[in-house]
Amino acid sequence: MRAALLQMPVVREKTENIDTAYRYLLRARDMGAQLAVLPEMWCCTYETSLFAANAESTPDAPARRMLSDAARELNLYIVGGSIPERDGNALYNTSFVYAPSGEPLARHRKTYLFDIDIPGRQTYRESDVFTHGDGATVFPTPWGMLGVEICFDLRFPELARETVLKGAWAICAPSMFNPTTGPAHWELTLRARALDNQCYMLGVESAPDPSMCYVSHGHSLAVNPWGEVMCDLGDAPDVRVVELDPEEVKRVRRELPLLSVLKR
Amino acid sequence: MRAALLQMPVVREKTENIDTAYRYLLRARDMGAQLAVLPEMWCCTYETSLFAANAESTPDAPARRMLSDAARELNLYIVGGSIPERDGNALYNTSFVYAPSGEPLARHRKTYLFDIDIPGRQTYRESDVFTHGDGATVFPTPWGMLGVEICFDLRFPELARETVLKGAWAICAPSMFNPTTGPAHWELTLRARALDNQCYMLGVESAPDPSMCYVSHGHSLAVNPWGEVMCDLGDAPDVRVVELDPEEVKRVRRELPLLSVLKR
Repeated sequence: MRAALLQMPVVREKTENIDTAYRYLLRARDMGAQLAVLPEMWCCTYETSLFAANAESTPDAPARRMLSDAARELNLYIVGGSIPERDGNALYNTSFVYAPSGEPLARHRKTYLFDIDIPGRQTYRESDVFTHGDGATVFPTPWGMLGVEICFDLRFPELARETVLKGAWAICAPSMFNPTTGPAHWELTLRARALDNQCYMLGVESAPDPSMCYVSHGHSLAVNPWGEVMCDLGDAPDVRVVELDPEEVKRVRRELPLLSVLKR
Repeated sequence: MRAALLQMPVVREKTENIDTAYRYLLRARDMGAQLAVLPEMWCCTYETSLFAANAESTPDAPARRMLSDAARELNLYIVGGSIPERDGNALYNTSFVYAPSGEPLARHRKTYLFDIDIPGRQTYRESDVFTHGDGATVFPTPWGMLGVEICFDLRFPELARETVLKGAWAICAPSMFNPTTGPAHWELTLRARALDNQCYMLGVESAPDPSMCYVSHGHSLAVNPWGEVMCDLGDAPDVRVVELDPEEVKRVRRELPLLSVLKR
């Protein structure tokens, strides 16, 4: 399976972001991708005040409609990064997944919200704005079951484990680490989840823009089931396609049986 | 709290290993340590055929007696690496922990046994010889609760999590990775457990001896609760003392609340 990591730039204007995301999906298709992964919160910049204004509540809202249309037009599985979703009075940080038919396949609401308070370096309380989701999300493809989690979800080994025990052999993780936690923890966390669960991890961030009030880390990564980094997109806008092999997952799980021991 | 990592050499002769371990404990005390950690299977080399012959079943057997006597004489908390333990017909890979009174404080039986089969590189089936233990082990000290796990136990994030949720703010991990899994996974796994659980990790291996049929990785490591390596003992016999601060654990857990979210 050929998967594309779309490290797109994000601006404040939603319509411009939707255009950019579409162009990146087109590039992914042109590069031979069968599945494409967008970054967390790609339809507006990461500012608490923008989430409500850019939230979508119906399938025909602009970001979701574009994702569905692009999936069908480009014959792609799309893990639609994340956008703010409104459901009644609640806002969620949500990843919508589409099949090449354009049909919605899954919806993952970020389960662990990003609350951090490192004096003088990084303070943020996502739980002031968003309601949390309730656990692991997987979706079927012709290559087997895949999973989705969003950014801070990665901090919790329980969730990746639950995702893999539901059958996922690769986990797509739209994310937005930052200049404090990114260099310290991004690669370590993705490699650990891949190694412990003997699965591929696709961590996709937007391209860092130092002029934003919340700057992403970039460095979108693919990691293989032995815990090795397959590619690192650095800090510029970029698209990369990696080949993921479900047989490689089976081989690692046979040679070093970890998941089967859990079931004893 | 000052903790010593004892990267001692191990030979086939049990009596010689007991002498060596005692000398390393003495060095740790002379360096100001309050707690000392020995490596996995320090009383005989890592050969399936040697485990039954070197197993101990009573507190007055030679390795356990030395550990208890040394704890009292040197006024040390000792995490006694691991030795083969016989209980009825069963053998366990067991870590005995002693208080400075010489009293046994805890016993951790390796919960996840090391079974691996990488053709042409590394094949081992510990579960042919040992019975597995049944979960997390913690023990009280004047500095708070500490935990123990053994080597392959580290592969399972569930066990470190259980240990920390039982109150441990540092986990001692007598271990013996190898030339295949050591370079690929040793540091990654210890750093991930420390980061995810916001605790110190002390991974202690014996000094590698290429003449042995199973060669250890060495590189005993201390990792802080931000996931950073504090020291790496390389591949020669050595003793290192590191300062562990329970206040640092509290600070990291306050700034980046992970464990409290789990309890919601």
